[in-house]
Amino acid sequence: MSATPRPPLPPTAFTLPAKYYTDPAMFERELDVFFRRMWVCVGRFEELGEHGSYLARHLAGDSLFLVRTSRPGEPDAVKAFHNLCRHRGTALCAEERGHFAGSIQCEYHAWTYDFDGQLIGAPHMDGSPHFRKEDFPLLQARAGVWDGFIYVCLSDTGPTLEQQLADMPTKFRPWHMGELRRGDGITYDIRANWKLIIQNFSECLHCPNLHPALNKLSHYLSGENEPLRPTYMGGRMDLNDGVATMSMDGTCRRDFLPGLAPEDQRRVYYYALFPNLLISAHPDYVMTHTLWPIATNHTRLVCEWYFHPDEMAKPGFSSADVRAFWDMTNRQDWHVCDLAQRGISARAYRPGPYSAREDLLYAFDRFIVAAHE
Amino acid sequence: MSATPRPPLPPTAFTLPAKYYTDPAMFERELDVFFRRMWVCVGRFEELGEHGSYLARHLAGDSLFLVRTSRPGEPDAVKAFHNLCRHRGTALCAEERGHFAGSIQCEYHAWTYDFDGQLIGAPHMDGSPHFRKEDFPLLQARAGVWDGFIYVCLSDTGPTLEQQLADMPTKFRPWHMGELRRGDGITYDIRANWKLIIQNFSECLHCPNLHPALNKLSHYLSGENEPLRPTYMGGRMDLNDGVATMSMDGTCRRDFLPGLAPEDQRRVYYYALFPNLLISAHPDYVMTHTLWPIATNHTRLVCEWYFHPDEMAKPGFSSADVRAFWDMTNRQDWHVCDLAQRGISARAYRPGPYSAREDLLYAFDRFIVAAHE
Amino acid sequence: MSATPRPPLPPTAFTLPAKYYTDPAMFERELDVFFRRMWVCVGRFEELGEHGSYLARHLAGDSLFLVRTSRPGEPDAVKAFHNLCRHRGTALCAEERGHFAGSIQCEYHAWTYDFDGQLIGAPHMDGSPHFRKEDFPLLQARAGVWDGFIYVCLSDTGPTLEQQLADMPTKFRPWHMGELRRGDGITYDIRANWKLIIQNFSECLHCPNLHPALNKLSHYLSGENEPLRPTYMGGRMDLNDGVATMSMDGTCRRDFLPGLAPEDQRRVYYYALFPNLLISAHPDYVMTHTLWPIATNHTRLVCEWYFHPDEMAKPGFSSADVRAFWDMTNRQDWHVCDLAQRGISARAYRPGPYSAREDLLYAFDRFIVAAHE
Repeated sequence: MSATPRPPLPPTAFTLPAKYYTDPAMFERELDVFFRRMWVCVGRFEELGEHGSYLARHLAGDSLFLVRTSRPGEPDAVKAFHNLCRHRGTALCAEERGHFAGSIQCEYHAWTYDFDGQLIGAPHMDGSPHFRKEDFPLLQARAGVWDGFIYVCLSDTGPTLEQQLADMPTKFRPWHMGELRRGDGITYDIRANWKLIIQNFSECLHCPNLHPALNKLSHYLSGENEPLRPTYMGGRMDLNDGVATMSMDGTCRRDFLPGLAPEDQRRVYYYALFPNLLISAHPDYVMTHTLWPIATNHTRLVCEWYFHPDEMAKPGFSSADVRAFWDMTNRQDWHVCDLAQRGISARAYRPGPYSAREDLLYAFDRFIVAAHE
Repeated sequence: MSATPRPPLPPTAFTLPAKYYTDPAMFERELDVFFRRMWVCVGRFEELGEHGSYLARHLAGDSLFLVRTSRPGEPDAVKAFHNLCRHRGTALCAEERGHFAGSIQCEYHAWTYDFDGQLIGAPHMDGSPHFRKEDFPLLQARAGVWDGFIYVCLSDTGPTLEQQLADMPTKFRPWHMGELRRGDGITYDIRANWKLIIQNFSECLHCPNLHPALNKLSHYLSGENEPLRPTYMGGRMDLNDGVATMSMDGTCRRDFLPGLAPEDQRRVYYYALFPNLLISAHPDYVMTHTLWPIATNHTRLVCEWYFHPDEMAKPGFSSADVRAFWDMTNRQDWHVCDLAQRGISARAYRPGPYSAREDLLYAFDRFIVAAHE
Repeated sequence: MSATPRPPLPPTAFTLPAKYYTDPAMFERELDVFFRRMWVCVGRFEELGEHGSYLARHLAGDSLFLVRTSRPGEPDAVKAFHNLCRHRGTALCAEERGHFAGSIQCEYHAWTYDFDGQLIGAPHMDGSPHFRKEDFPLLQARAGVWDGFIYVCLSDTGPTLEQQLADMPTKFRPWHMGELRRGDGITYDIRANWKLIIQNFSECLHCPNLHPALNKLSHYLSGENEPLRPTYMGGRMDLNDGVATMSMDGTCRRDFLPGLAPEDQRRVYYYALFPNLLISAHPDYVMTHTLWPIATNHTRLVCEWYFHPDEMAKPGFSSADVRAFWDMTNRQDWHVCDLAQRGISARAYRPGPYSAREDLLYAFDRFIVAAHE
């Protein structure tokens, strides 16, 4: 293995002080900067089955629901509304997912909204001469879809989704992720700060010791990183000779994704799209990790696998090999993320030195520090 | 149904800002104003079976016990003491209810008090020349009983119980609540602020949508409210034709309460006695909700049903119809209280407009706002 | 029983204000003064079976592990290290106890330390010209062993273990505690402040009322206390006539500990070694309580019994009588500690007067007050 050497980091390239992982005020600030001002990935369009289907989401102290509209003459769309009635604040969606029959009605006093969020029914408000329905639409958040990923932005100002994604759509075009379908998923509760999970995702220096099975499939010094960009970072690794994809035994049970260039059939691309979507593109499937920060030391993470619908339609299709391999690997990662959170939370903790192989982490930390300035 | 129209509210009649439901400092202030200075309903006299029976209660950061005294030549009485020994502060009652045999003795070092709270035994304190038993009586709180409801007041100053109750005893005299006996009860833990429960209790605008069964028994626009009074608010609703009482099927399995006027046999009266007793008087039974605020978003509520002892003595007496109807209705209410707390707690929440049918809520909110000034 | 009378306490000898038991800032200050600056008992040397065995401990916001070294030509020793890797802070020990095979390796990126804490492996750091392994040893805490009890000190300065122990080693020499072996143990979670447990341990005025079984074995007015010393306090009680040791029935199923003087065969010595080791020396066994303060109102306590290895080697050896007697007695004590915490936490609590029999508690309280000044 001829790994490309990386330039040394400055002698000051140390990990972050503990407060970045333990201070509730800094956590809150990161929610502001990354989760309230940026576009956040909140789900997949295909989860919204038909006109009126909804998904509810808790995001950084807000509660939202996403509703799909399918109207003649219009492209199917998704809208994001704050999950509260304009009358007395009652949450409109009590469940995680469901379906609205034609309109959105509050259970409490039957205030009713259409799928554009306009108030169309408000019983007994006709006795209030000053009241006008048009003054009380649902509170809306910006929503958009990229290759099947639903994004919302809690801020009404700032960049568009396209601006934030930058050249990610170009980079991932060959995988046609919008055509893929979710084949499987696992939700994990991790006792670690959200940044530790992104850092864990962004280096494979830990692979030989922590992931012996993964390390047999791809050498940890293979591949290259891109420099950190304003809204993402990532790179690629090469599959070992004789390995067809990342699965329990390295064999590939599915056709490669259609149209993939030969070199992309021998690589895995991993990109962290700030703030919360981690994409791992494999020759025959795409894996995502979606992060939901709950507290300084608690992150909910949804891991999902996407396959080509032609493969999923084949008799005997199964995601079991991929799920088993990654669930094992994920749990190894969350274990060390938990240990890192524990050690960093100890009073005795002090920052330690990064190696040149942890260049992306050091860059990411600078990016985080800048957000607190 | 010819509902009496209500005068419109002012254009500023909006619900309260979120902080009233989410701010721990404001919650603490409400404990002070409403639960530490006012008389609070803490139980029923009939629960204290005989001389020496006690009930322990947690109230607004204090722990109290109520003890019954039955002495020759004196009316039976209830006393309220703080649940702590004057020696080393040990709680005297470990259980929720029980019986003292003749005196109140601390488990730890056997300091002993009589039922007036006087210290009558303090082992080994005779070696302390400065010590005088009369300086260390149990700490007492004011206690009183109205129609079987035990009230305590944590403040030694302020109005008497009679002053706080105002004309409630007169209003409820026809139901002779002091003669009724508890037939059944359910305790609920509700994920909502205590005020949301009082607001839910104080309007029936939500009945058609939320309570279809209840709405068949009494039209939601029937009845009248009284204006808010300094210590209570409430009104009445009319039973529909063919409905005898509020039960699963609207039939009444018991005689009406003795002495009730014909028009009161066709009505349900509901009054919120601040801060924590909600009374619903029906033709054949009385229901109470007693509220115990635990946190900004958590209230414990005890719902109980009281019947006439003659009915309870009859073979085949059952509270099942009433319990089933109200448990269903209660759970519908706690569901929307939970949804309201959730929506109001979201960062995006903003106050919304009240309808004229929510006049009592608007008045109650002004009363709450005044308490914070 | 001719109890020695004790001089009266000053009229101001009252229990501490509530804040000493409920204020998180004062709790944190006590962690500083008592648990971070003093030597703390953290386990028994015999629990560290062989070279490389480790025990992990959480102490006052730090995480430590103790590792035993057995090297030719050196006495066996115990070292205490902070449980975190100098690279990225990852905790090195995930389990409570275990064994290192030759070196201490981080699971995450395989940084490796020897049993002196020196960094001996740091993969890929050779690309960092400024990096020197000797700059990143494990963070060490002072450790020592007295009669089998492992002590650590989180502070690098201050008295030695020997200075802190003062004349305790002399006092306890007759029991040869270093030769005894742990025969049994129980861990309790107690809903009380750590000081309430020490206070409970330091007077037997509560014995007649709370511990009727114990009170049959030793009269509560027997024995003597020493005055409070800078780092410990305690005294002794006499066994009643016909009682051989403290067990369920007062009979002794084991030989007395070898070499014990006749008068020590008729006594129980109890000493609280600040901050966290309570020793009760009986004729045929030693009992310890080790305290771990978790929060103002939560203490974890490990109760253990130590016997002579000759007795433990006998067929039919059992600790059941001792365990049963003390588990019962312990639970009575934790019950009143819980009640005391509850009462002291009530808003109405105010300090109460100590009796002359509670002289050690009053002295201990002065010692605590001084630590906050």
